[in-house]
Order: sequence, then C-alpha cells, then structure tokens
Amino acid sequence: DGPPCCLACATAAPLLRDVCGPGRRAPGCVCVCVCGTRDYNPKQMAIREKVFSTIVSCFKRHGAETIDTPVFELKETLTGKYGEDSKLIYDLKDQGGELLSLRYDLTVPFARYLAMNKITNIKRYHIAKVYRRDNPAMTRGRYREFYQCDFDIAGQYDAMIPDAECLKIVYEILSELDLGDFRIKVNDRRILDGMFAVCGVPDEKFRTICSTVDKLDKMPWEEVRREMVEEKGLSEQAADQIGEYVSMQGGMDLAERLLQDQKLSQSKLACAGLADIKQLFSYLQLFQVTDKVVFDLSLARGLDYYTGIIYEAVLTQAGVAAACGEAQNGAGGEESVSVGSVAGGGRYDGLVGMFDPKGRKVPCVGVSIGIERIFSIMEQKAEASAEKIRTTQVQVMVASAQKNLLEERLKLITELWSAGIKAEVMYKKNPKLLSQLQHCEEAGIPLVAILGEQELKDGVVKLRVVASREEVASESCSILHVELFPVDVQQTMDISAAELTLLCWASGRAL
Amino acid sequence: DGPPCCLACATAAPLLRDVCGPGRRAPGCVCVCVCGTRDYNPKQMAIREKVFSTIVSCFKRHGAETIDTPVFELKETLTGKYGEDSKLIYDLKDQGGELLSLRYDLTVPFARYLAMNKITNIKRYHIAKVYRRDNPAMTRGRYREFYQCDFDIAGQYDAMIPDAECLKIVYEILSELDLGDFRIKVNDRRILDGMFAVCGVPDEKFRTICSTVDKLDKMPWEEVRREMVEEKGLSEQAADQIGEYVSMQGGMDLAERLLQDQKLSQSKLACAGLADIKQLFSYLQLFQVTDKVVFDLSLARGLDYYTGIIYEAVLTQAGVAAACGEAQNGAGGEESVSVGSVAGGGRYDGLVGMFDPKGRKVPCVGVSIGIERIFSIMEQKAEASAEKIRTTQVQVMVASAQKNLLEERLKLITELWSAGIKAEVMYKKNPKLLSQLQHCEEAGIPLVAILGEQELKDGVVKLRVVASREEVASESCSILHVELFPVDVQQTMDISAAELTLLCWASGRAL
Repeated sequence: DGPPCCLACATAAPLLRDVCGPGRRAPGCVCVCVCGTRDYNPKQMAIREKVFSTIVSCFKRHGAETIDTPVFELKETLTGKYGEDSKLIYDLKDQGGELLSLRYDLTVPFARYLAMNKITNIKRYHIAKVYRRDNPAMTRGRYREFYQCDFDIAGQYDAMIPDAECLKIVYEILSELDLGDFRIKVNDRRILDGMFAVCGVPDEKFRTICSTVDKLDKMPWEEVRREMVEEKGLSEQAADQIGEYVSMQGGMDLAERLLQDQKLSQSKLACAGLADIKQLFSYLQLFQVTDKVVFDLSLARGLDYYTGIIYEAVLTQAGVAAACGEAQNGAGGEESVSVGSVAGGGRYDGLVGMFDPKGRKVPCVGVSIGIERIFSIMEQKAEASAEKIRTTQVQVMVASAQKNLLEERLKLITELWSAGIKAEVMYKKNPKLLSQLQHCEEAGIPLVAILGEQELKDGVVKLRVVASREEVASESCSILHVELFPVDVQQTMDISAAELTLLCWASGRAL
Repeated sequence: DGPPCCLACATAAPLLRDVCGPGRRAPGCVCVCVCGTRDYNPKQMAIREKVFSTIVSCFKRHGAETIDTPVFELKETLTGKYGEDSKLIYDLKDQGGELLSLRYDLTVPFARYLAMNKITNIKRYHIAKVYRRDNPAMTRGRYREFYQCDFDIAGQYDAMIPDAECLKIVYEILSELDLGDFRIKVNDRRILDGMFAVCGVPDEKFRTICSTVDKLDKMPWEEVRREMVEEKGLSEQAADQIGEYVSMQGGMDLAERLLQDQKLSQSKLACAGLADIKQLFSYLQLFQVTDKVVFDLSLARGLDYYTGIIYEAVLTQAGVAAACGEAQNGAGGEESVSVGSVAGGGRYDGLVGMFDPKGRKVPCVGVSIGIERIFSIMEQKAEASAEKIRTTQVQVMVASAQKNLLEERLKLITELWSAGIKAEVMYKKNPKLLSQLQHCEEAGIPLVAILGEQELKDGVVKLRVVASREEVASESCSILHVELFPVDVQQTMDISAAELTLLCWASGRAL
C-alpha cells in the first residue's frame, strides 16, 4: 500500500499536501475519497454533535423554526447571486432533466423558498452542507463540502431590532463554544458605497473596489492600495482617501463622529447607514454585547446580495491561532492575532424579490456560522486534552463468565432494551470475560452485567462497575434483580442518572 | 401568477401531476424548485425531527456510533455496485476535477470508508440524504432526494447474532413509530440461488430471474411467470417449480421442512442458507420479535451486493394504506394490504473487499429505514389529528401594554435568554398588545411577560398564561421577579417543566 496522500489525508501526510490536489493524485495514492471533502469518524461526529447542539439550543432560545431545502437547485436559481465567486458553483451533469447546481450557500435557497411559498415573515435556522469548488486547505478547515449554520429573520420590522438579535446570537454562540476571545466587526454596505462616492470612486467601480477592500483581513493596506491603483485604475488620491476611512474602528461614538464628517456626511446613503449603526449600537448595549462589537469601516464582505448592515466574527486569541496552524494579521491587528472569520452575515433586502414573479421584496437579515473552522479547533482541543471522548452511550455490557450462556445474555439484553437501557452484547457464542471487560474499558462503558453458572443457579446477576471493579449481586431474586448499590458507592462511582435508573430498575425498585 | 404545477407541488395541484415532470414544466408554472425534491417547512421539520429522534434513540440504545461521508463519491466508487439501477445515479459535470457522482445509498460509502480506514469492526448508524434519478411519485413518498437511516454491523462474528439484532432494531423502530401493523419478510440470497439451481435456471440467468422474482410484491405471479418465460426465456417447467417455492411462507418450521425437501436439500448453498434461517429464528425468539417476522421465499431484493440473509419490512394495515394513497396487493396478500417497503437490508460480505487494494473482506450486515414514506404517513396523521404541532419551543413572549417600552422589553429578554429561557420579542418599537397576544396563540407560546407603565412603577412584571388568560404579578420586588403561580394553577395549566423553571426563576425561588 502506498501512503495516504490525497488532500483529504493532508493531516495524515502533510508533506504530500502539495503533491495531490483536486483531480490529481500522487503516484501510489490508494485513497478513494473526493479531494476537498472529509469523512467524519465517530469521534469527530461526537464533537460535531456537541457543537451543533450548542448552536441549535441558541437558535431555539431565540424562537427560530427550522426548514430544509434540497442539496441542489435549478442552475438559474443560483445564477447572478454570488458575483465573482459564481465560478465556484458545482454543476450537475445534464442527464436529460433540468440543469442543476449544488447549493453554494443556504441564503439563496432560503430566499427562493420564501418567494415560492409567498412567506413574508419567518425566523428560521437551517443547518446543512454547502458546496464550493474552491482550493481546499483541509488543515485550516477549508473544504469543498462544508457545513453552514444559518439563522435569518425575514419580515418588515422596525430598523435594526432583528439585526441586533443576529449579532446577539453570534455573541452567545461564540461565548458558549468557548473558543477564546473574539470580535464582531460591523459595517454597512451603504456606508461603503457612500464612502466610495465621496472619495471619488466612479460608480461602475464600486463593486470591484469593494472586493479589493474585502481583502484587508488577508493583506496589508499597501498591497490593497496597489491593487486599487495599479490593477483597478483608481486614482492615487481616491485610494488614499479610502485608506483613511478604512483604518477607522470604534463604536457608537465613531458613527456619531462620522455623521459630522464634512465629506462623508455629504452622502445620504452613508448617513442612513451611520444612523442605523448608531441605532444598532443602542440595542447592542441593551443586549449587553458591545464589549465584542466593533464598527469597522474596512469590513466589506464579498457577496453581491447585501444591501445594508454587514458583519463578520473573528477569533482573536493567539492560542487558538497556533492550534489552528494559521497566523494571519488582522486588518486592525492590535496586539491580538486573527485566525479568520467564523461567522458572517448581513442584511439582504432585495434577494427574495429576485425570485418573485412580481418582484415583491421581503426584507431579510441573517447570520451564517462557519462551522468547519470551529470543528478543527474543537478537534485539536479534544486531542490536546486528556479527557476521553465517548462515541457511544452504552450504559451496560451484558457479559458472561462461562461458555454456553449466549441464550441467557440475549434474554437479559432484550429486557434491558425494552426498559430503554442502552446495552450491548458481544456477537460471539463464547466470548472471553477478559475481552468483554476490555471492550468496556475501551468504549467507556461504565457497567457490566455478568452472568455465570453460579449466578444462574442463585438467580442473580452480578453487576460490576468497570472503573472501580466493585461488584454486587442480589441475594435471592429473579435473574434480573440485583441489589441497588449502597448510596456511598453511588457517590464515589460518579455514575449518571441513567445508570442509576438502570440499577434501580435492575433491583426492581423505584428511585 | 400561474398555479403551482411542477411535480414538487403535486399535492397542492394533483390534477397537474401528469403535466409536469422532471425537466418539463406546464406552461405558466412559476415554481423554481427541482422536480422530485421537496422543501421541508417548519411543521414538516417538527415531524421529521420527532421521527429521527425515535430512530436515533433506538440506534443508540443498541450501542451504535455514527459517521458521516460526503454527499458525492468518485464515480468509480459507485460503478458496478447497483446492477440495473446504476442508470439512476446522478453524475456531476466534469468541471476540471474528478468525475463525481451523488451517493445512491449509504452502504457503498460505508464500505468505502471501512476499506479506506482499514476498519475491521464497527457498529455505526448514518442518517443522510441519497439521490436517485427515478420517476418521482411525491404523494406516495417517492423522491429523487430522500433520507436513509442506516444501521450496520461490520466484523467477523458468530453467525446470525448481528443479523438478528438488525431485525430487532427494525421491529423496535416500527413499533415505536406506531405506524400500524407490519411484517418483516426474511430470505437468503443463497436459498434463492440454490432454488434457481435445483429448478433448472441456467447459472447466467440467476441475477435476471432474481430481479423478476423481486417484482412479486408489485405484480401477481402470473405476470412474473410470463416475464420469466416470455421475456427472459426460462422454461415453463423451471418457472412453475420456482412458482411453488416462492409461494411458501413460514417460520423456523418452514426452514426445517425445506432442509428435508428432496430437491432443495441437494443444493449445499440452499442448505447453508436454511441452517442460518433456523439459527436466526432461534435468536429472534429470544429477542421476542417472531410475531412479525416471516420467512418468505419470494423476497429477492434488487441490489447486487447482498450475499446472505436479506429482509424487508412492510406496513400491512389497510388504514395506513388508505392514508398513504396507495393500495397494492402484497405477494402473500392474506387479508391485509401492503403499502410497500419501509425498511430493508441484508448481509453483504463482499462489498468492503471491493475497495481494499488486497481484497481483504469485512463481513457486514445492515438495515436501511426508508424514512420518506414514514414521513408521509406521519404528516397525514398529523393533519388528520386535532393536535397542533408547535414549530418553535418559545416559552415566553416579552410584551408591552403601552408605547415606548422597547428598551425595557429588550432588557428583560436579555435576562431571560441568559437564564436559558426560550423567549421572543416583537421586532416593533410599539407593537399592539393584541397582536402580541395573537402571535402567542398562533405560535402556541404558553406565557407572556407583560410590561406596562404601572408595572414599571410598581417594579413588577405581569405574567400571563395565554391559554387561561390568568395573570399574576409580584407585590414588591425587582422588575424580573414575579410571584410563583399557586400550585393549583400550575396543575390546571398543564405547563411544562421548562416553563415551571421560568416561573421559579422569575420568582427568584428554587424549585
């Protein structure tokens, strides 16, 4: 066998990272996986489920419903929604049906769903995989198939209240996941457009200059300026004026100051955006999240469909950056190091109307949690920690100490299952007791119910605590009844409520 | 706007069902969905989550881990695994990378995963969508994108123990989902092959005759016989002998009788299969599931990869059949009417070896729950029942009785959220009390916390039970503290534990 060497195995064979790539394999590669994708093994699934459960709890606490849409959409549904990134869309082969593409995000399918069902207000979350034919960088959590966790509020409401809730949600989720310090950058498309206008950027260059500004979190201002002037033909003077604005960061005070700014206040668009930022911060104060939110004029975001407020959350802890194998300098670096975006979103008031035959608009604001990078961090954290991750929830192993007790084991486990107890039995007629106990230790199963000739004769089951090796058996009751552990044993054993139920059930007693 | 008329909307516009189809739309169709797929609205999601939770609980009770694999595989991974059905595989467009196909089931990706990671034993479940370019029949739960819930046991174990557990799992899930009566048909590929051999079917016709036998649940014996003789060129005598065998149904007794059958007992293959069926039934007796399991020689199953035992579960209740809009006559009809398969599986000992460079085999047995048909039934049941399905879990609505109290509402809800309480607020500066209360009734929110000038002055919050319209307020405590409901009110209100927590928390008391 050759070594695992395609990109999906980059973590296993980092030196081969540059040899294999999408569509090309190193000689001797025996992998049969798709480049840029990953399988989740049971340990990774355990981490994934924990992350999802935190996120879903937060979405539900905020009253969201959930929907689901197909993995593919009509190609025309996705066309013209993603700007330059449209080239990354996966198309299906034309096999004599419709022209289909894999979804690129969850926002466009959501807008299509609202328009098709004529829904004018809803608060929903959607957790699902999306697809982008990007250059994968697996060790940094960049895949071609990856999860997004989206929360969106659609409806005609008073300004900035739903927008503020989206930021509150990002704040809650990132705090609860305990990934280290973070910042949420906020800006507004109208402020950007107003800024471009007053700095003398020609109208037709707004979008392209905007996507250059978007690179400020990945490259220094000098390079961004060079791209604006040399590649995009902007005047040096305009670039320098933009440079002044995009270095500004602050809170409500900055919005107030800019509303007085001689140049920027000439743009009605910018003023509307600034007034909304002010309003937003007043709600964020009530939500008690202003300590992590920064009004940052360098935030641009690539997607075409945003119309108002935009935001992006970045982890800033140097420790996390190291764990993630990535150390970039954030735009507004300060002392902390950015490890890239883990959440982003904004207001898109025009998207639903693009799917409605009469163009009826439904204002929307939402946020998308980019979960793969979070998974990577959590996985590395789990590996570094001594704590063992259980991948099953088995409470008791039904074992036998002698041969020819398969029937009795199957009878006992049937009773346990029908009592709702999570139980396992080895699929062997005559397994060795040692191998049954070893399996318990490996899998973290806390209890073993042991059947033997003597127990059968006495009509008892021996119950053994794997960690402490303590054993108990009832004196004289039916095969399934054992004595309840004495209370002090329970306390030292650190067994869960479910396992206590098992013990109580086994003893035939109510708790 | 034209009426919704593509296949995805067949339930809404049943008369147009035949007008639209994959790739063709009726004139005036305004749908932007992919034919053969569906969106799940919040109500459907609530049902789906309930079904999944029942299934996952069962899988976990039996000690399964879970994995996930990408939605697409290399095309070559799927090639040659599905027999005649391979034409239904969705291919991706060649966009300069690998040739990819959407997964057709979860079994082949599982086998690929085991081989690639050199895993020789695992018990895992996997719940995910699979893709087939079949003719959709949405009202009967047949889609081009649909969920499968798979449970498989891989490893070299003593015969029939894991196989019996798979059947036990099907039994538990179908019982718990409460879909009405069901049967689990069992057969063995080796018995089928042995039967074909002793009936005089030429070796090279085994597979094609097998797929004709597979149609016995959809058409009467006469038609199946005709296809064998006229289309597939089988002798009338061989067909009639097959006809005798495939009409047989029974339990362990039938296996014993067939082991004595003069003709069938000449086939070693058949005898091995029959011995295993006998062994299987002895375990099924211990698992207490023999009342629903039938050894049925007409069961064939289409997929190529099965090597031993095969099984399929069908719902038999006439009531369910009517609800499902489908009434077929089962092969062994009796008095009950089959509504088609809801679960199926079997043993596939050769599949993993096909992905291993050295052909090392890993014996596997598994079952797949076909969930879409179950969703359809549950949805129709939910529609027929008076019970209202909640799509959110909101416990309390933070409302105001007067104008200009947005700040106070946002402050209060911030406290509720940080206490883990699921709470909502209307995104309006000055919502009407009536519309806030109406929203509670529509969404099934049980409690409203009402703020008004008087309450603020008194330093209390009024808490109102939406259903009974009872109200309470504390006498003199902080804005967040209200009196605990008297116990008798709790009882008549039928409020949940979480809501009680809310009340206790609001009152500043421990439970």
